[in-house]
Amino acid sequence: MKIVVAVGGSIIIKENSHEKFKDYADVLRSMNDEHKLFIVVGGGKPAREYIGIARDLGVSEAACDDIGIDVTRLNAKLLIMALGEDAYPKVAKNFHEAMEFSVSGKIVVMGGTEPAHSTDAVSSILAEFVNADLLINATSVDGLYDKDPNKHDDAKMFEKITPAEMMSILSSKETKAGTYEFFDSTAIQIIKRSKIKTRIVNGNHAENIQKAVSSEIGTTIVHD
Amino acid sequence: MKIVVAVGGSIIIKENSHEKFKDYADVLRSMNDEHKLFIVVGGGKPAREYIGIARDLGVSEAACDDIGIDVTRLNAKLLIMALGEDAYPKVAKNFHEAMEFSVSGKIVVMGGTEPAHSTDAVSSILAEFVNADLLINATSVDGLYDKDPNKHDDAKMFEKITPAEMMSILSSKETKAGTYEFFDSTAIQIIKRSKIKTRIVNGNHAENIQKAVSSEIGTTIVHD
Amino acid sequence: MKIVVAVGGSIIIKENSHEKFKDYADVLRSMNDEHKLFIVVGGGKPAREYIGIARDLGVSEAACDDIGIDVTRLNAKLLIMALGEDAYPKVAKNFHEAMEFSVSGKIVVMGGTEPAHSTDAVSSILAEFVNADLLINATSVDGLYDKDPNKHDDAKMFEKITPAEMMSILSSKETKAGTYEFFDSTAIQIIKRSKIKTRIVNGNHAENIQKAVSSEIGTTIVHD
Amino acid sequence: MKIVVAVGGSIIIKENSHEKFKDYADVLRSMNDEHKLFIVVGGGKPAREYIGIARDLGVSEAACDDIGIDVTRLNAKLLIMALGEDAYPKVAKNFHEAMEFSVSGKIVVMGGTEPAHSTDAVSSILAEFVNADLLINATSVDGLYDKDPNKHDDAKMFEKITPAEMMSILSSKETKAGTYEFFDSTAIQIIKRSKIKTRIVNGNHAENIQKAVSSEIGTTIVHD
Amino acid sequence: MKIVVAVGGSIIIKENSHEKFKDYADVLRSMNDEHKLFIVVGGGKPAREYIGIARDLGVSEAACDDIGIDVTRLNAKLLIMALGEDAYPKVAKNFHEAMEFSVSGKIVVMGGTEPAHSTDAVSSILAEFVNADLLINATSVDGLYDKDPNKHDDAKMFEKITPAEMMSILSSKETKAGTYEFFDSTAIQIIKRSKIKTRIVNGNHAENIQKAVSSEIGTTIVHD
Amino acid sequence: MKIVVAVGGSIIIKENSHEKFKDYADVLRSMNDEHKLFIVVGGGKPAREYIGIARDLGVSEAACDDIGIDVTRLNAKLLIMALGEDAYPKVAKNFHEAMEFSVSGKIVVMGGTEPAHSTDAVSSILAEFVNADLLINATSVDGLYDKDPNKHDDAKMFEKITPAEMMSILSSKETKAGTYEFFDSTAIQIIKRSKIKTRIVNGNHAENIQKAVSSEIGTTIVHD
Repeated sequence: MKIVVAVGGSIIIKENSHEKFKDYADVLRSMNDEHKLFIVVGGGKPAREYIGIARDLGVSEAACDDIGIDVTRLNAKLLIMALGEDAYPKVAKNFHEAMEFSVSGKIVVMGGTEPAHSTDAVSSILAEFVNADLLINATSVDGLYDKDPNKHDDAKMFEKITPAEMMSILSSKETKAGTYEFFDSTAIQIIKRSKIKTRIVNGNHAENIQKAVSSEIGTTIVHD
Repeated sequence: MKIVVAVGGSIIIKENSHEKFKDYADVLRSMNDEHKLFIVVGGGKPAREYIGIARDLGVSEAACDDIGIDVTRLNAKLLIMALGEDAYPKVAKNFHEAMEFSVSGKIVVMGGTEPAHSTDAVSSILAEFVNADLLINATSVDGLYDKDPNKHDDAKMFEKITPAEMMSILSSKETKAGTYEFFDSTAIQIIKRSKIKTRIVNGNHAENIQKAVSSEIGTTIVHD
Repeated sequence: MKIVVAVGGSIIIKENSHEKFKDYADVLRSMNDEHKLFIVVGGGKPAREYIGIARDLGVSEAACDDIGIDVTRLNAKLLIMALGEDAYPKVAKNFHEAMEFSVSGKIVVMGGTEPAHSTDAVSSILAEFVNADLLINATSVDGLYDKDPNKHDDAKMFEKITPAEMMSILSSKETKAGTYEFFDSTAIQIIKRSKIKTRIVNGNHAENIQKAVSSEIGTTIVHD
Repeated sequence: MKIVVAVGGSIIIKENSHEKFKDYADVLRSMNDEHKLFIVVGGGKPAREYIGIARDLGVSEAACDDIGIDVTRLNAKLLIMALGEDAYPKVAKNFHEAMEFSVSGKIVVMGGTEPAHSTDAVSSILAEFVNADLLINATSVDGLYDKDPNKHDDAKMFEKITPAEMMSILSSKETKAGTYEFFDSTAIQIIKRSKIKTRIVNGNHAENIQKAVSSEIGTTIVHD
Repeated sequence: MKIVVAVGGSIIIKENSHEKFKDYADVLRSMNDEHKLFIVVGGGKPAREYIGIARDLGVSEAACDDIGIDVTRLNAKLLIMALGEDAYPKVAKNFHEAMEFSVSGKIVVMGGTEPAHSTDAVSSILAEFVNADLLINATSVDGLYDKDPNKHDDAKMFEKITPAEMMSILSSKETKAGTYEFFDSTAIQIIKRSKIKTRIVNGNHAENIQKAVSSEIGTTIVHD
Repeated sequence: MKIVVAVGGSIIIKENSHEKFKDYADVLRSMNDEHKLFIVVGGGKPAREYIGIARDLGVSEAACDDIGIDVTRLNAKLLIMALGEDAYPKVAKNFHEAMEFSVSGKIVVMGGTEPAHSTDAVSSILAEFVNADLLINATSVDGLYDKDPNKHDDAKMFEKITPAEMMSILSSKETKAGTYEFFDSTAIQIIKRSKIKTRIVNGNHAENIQKAVSSEIGTTIVHD
């Protein structure tokens, strides 16, 4: 199966620890024989810190995005290091490179691509570009909720949701570099137009990536 | 003034004629002494034709976008040819290149950047990235309408509109490579988050680009 | 066997149809297990149209060639799309890239390389560069004729011809971007200096590519 | 005057604050009319953190250096952002790019280049490569000491020192990614072989960069 | 005036001496204020030596050309070094780069571009690409002769010659990497199709380059 | 076993002969099934000649190094040609490319990387970067001596030596482009910090490369 995995930066790079990189590498390596894997890594805390400095310097939001993208590529490089010989040794900078690198049969790892594209958007476009059979989105909570579950006790997780429902939830929200919602509108539209099978899972446990391949954990985006 | 101009492909490349390229080159050249110019060119009919072949071959929507982007770059190269010594001689492939090329003081011309980004989105991100004072969007009609003016006699053009109003108009529409709406949601969100002064004008008359710098022709996107 | 195939643009891109791309992909795919394949694709009608606009803009012949080359690469990308997993996913821009991409074991597809080199020249240099065992040139007629068979009823096709004979036929002809003869002098000289086994066949039937491997169809360039 | 300035990462990126970037930008901008400037930025704390994760993942020292270099480039990009229009908008990745970018007349900013080269080494090679009139090295203390002044009260700062004296001080020390001494041996050898006028100053005060151009502050490396 | 100068390798790199590089740099520098200069440098003896080793290793003629091109770029780099600040600091690898580099206002220097293109061909295509007013070809003899003047006492130099006459002289000659004739057929065809004003002069005296701008020394290629 | 081999230019390119390239290619090809090979080729006489011209032109030592690096890449290309299908067809320009190219399973060949890095330094960093099991350094004499064995009859070859001992021998020596000692200090420091198993052998006999894998010929650098 061809699988694209998006791993939020806040999941994989924690307190300057290498452990989540190692966990993810172990799980992905075990999946590599059976599946063709593409991983998109987010920026997390270091990205927010660099974006913070950039914003204090008064640069544009696009420039803030831009330095955030550089940090996602640093994180992607760490995952490549953790994967060792199983990964293609270079971070893919765009979708063309991801396609090229995958010819090697190695796991392809990338970060962001360009301003105004969140990790969600990048992973959904990548899934479309490579005709992935499954898109797995690893976030810091168990799935997609109707409101932020860290702030609201009554937040309700969707087991299934359609892109149209997602769009209506997202409407009237603001986009600011480094503080994207679970899914920006671009990602949803891509998933919708190509009916990409998508699962949003709790990425704090790397093994959920493997589980998401066969079982319906977390939130599954369904198409009519 | 730093100005980004988006020129729809259907505007500039018509019936294999060089005339609109020449018209635009004349107008842009006359503005070049006073302003710093960045031009984003769309794909038009040749893009639709290439996308049509690609789609018939059964490739993904992202791959359709991708070949459409290549055509926008062909069109951008034609505009560079028309501009001669006034243009930087290479098509910028991304926002970084656009920044770099502009150091030369020449007019910078680019096409699309990557899948899922329409000409609208590219031009708005570019405007944000370079801190443009004005974004001019040259379309095939007089401005932004509440519905397609080519199909509906009672379509009403907005003289002023807010990004929020644009979002509500756009909601519940589909995105398909080569058939984007006037403004995709990414573009609107960018314009909104950075309060970019934006004017949508009738690009069938190249001189409207010059007019849009000083007068409120077409539709102006306003911010609170 | 290592085989270079040149496919004229007028052969493969017809009336915006995907069919010839599909036909060629089917034939090439079937040959891919047994042979190492490099394909050079020409520009055809879209190239002539873009060159026409460029020429109307008053640019140099080299610049006309240049935009024509961009179109050949668009066509090459379509063939890659048609070939899917059997093709290396990126159009080779020069001979070095063709060499590199072929390490993958995939079919390598390219368009033109630089001004003043026709598809014929590119394919012959490529054949020399990769030490091809056979160069197949797919044209719109059955082989190489003493005059244009579309204009002259008494045009005579050569079953065999030497490079020296070709040179004498070509002498005193003009070269203009987009209107090259069957074989420009560079191509002939390359074929001559490296005694490249070459066959010119009717490319309107994709299966002729396969036939040309084993049987003497069309025109064969022979060496002393 | 052509001046290369090396700014240690620990100097410029402190507690995720933008202030030192701003300070440096102000000073460098004021010097830009009169001098041709090249800045080499180090990695600092974020580099040490990323290197720490990489080392925990068990990669080689060269790979640790490599990710540290990526962080120096992030810091270099922040300085470019702070400099705005006065800087060339892209981080130079090697000495050739630094040369090319300087043609623009803008301030050129770079980070590291490749493993086993500290910021000191990069700046000295750059100074040699561009025939700089002066190399200024901004460190966290007032100059070059006979021992670590943060640990030893009796550490003595050299007002003048020769490369030979530096070499003898450095001998019998270890090199580990991210924990280089004030000057690695490569840097000293370069400064020696090309007799580069070099001054080591306290970079905690950005204005020392300007002072170092005309007055003998800090430590000056002298040649026989 | 926009001028392209082709300097044969045998002219500029002699007995490992730097003198001709210095001579040419002096002359070109003196012309740089008044003219826009593009220089194409050939391979000479070092190219022949490297090609010799490559041929002994049994590689193709195209591969021989390829390593010869690398040597022309080495020679081009030496000329850039001799020109110092007056030259763009990087060797242009193709015509696009030459165009880009010339935006800087510096002298652009390049070597070969790709197999099967002699220095003559490269310089003529470049002249066409940049719309040069004059192409000067510096060879080891006084101009273009009816036969090799080094071997034949009765060799006659043409003061004027047409491309058609050149073609007839060249017909029935062989092309082998590193042993091209004065003008390969590609070069002549380019000069012909774009009616490029061309002068072939004795390059052993660098000042002939300057003389060729205003006076009819050597051989002048004339157009009807 | 993963093996990095450094081959001095004076070893492999002699009197413009292809023979040593062929010898090395034969030996390396025979080792390729069992081992993963990376080769670093030096500059030799052609490098010294080009550096000589550059130095006469008055450029910096770094610029001299730079043109020397270009020559090492020419030599690397010749070795690639000699290796044919067993080598990756492109010279790696840096350590990242070497990593990428090795994914192909082919022998990777490179020359120098940047100024101030001798062939020794490049090969030791490469060995560290790819986690090589063995670094073999092919020189013009039998191993590492206490003084130049070509000048001193009583020069004594070390069978074993530690990095610390090497450092003390090297101290108080000068570095000048093209005239590096057996091991520059960077190389020794790298070998020391990563305890790289290293063997220095007589490269005049290509088969010594193969012997060095299993037997202790030449000088072995030992770690505590």
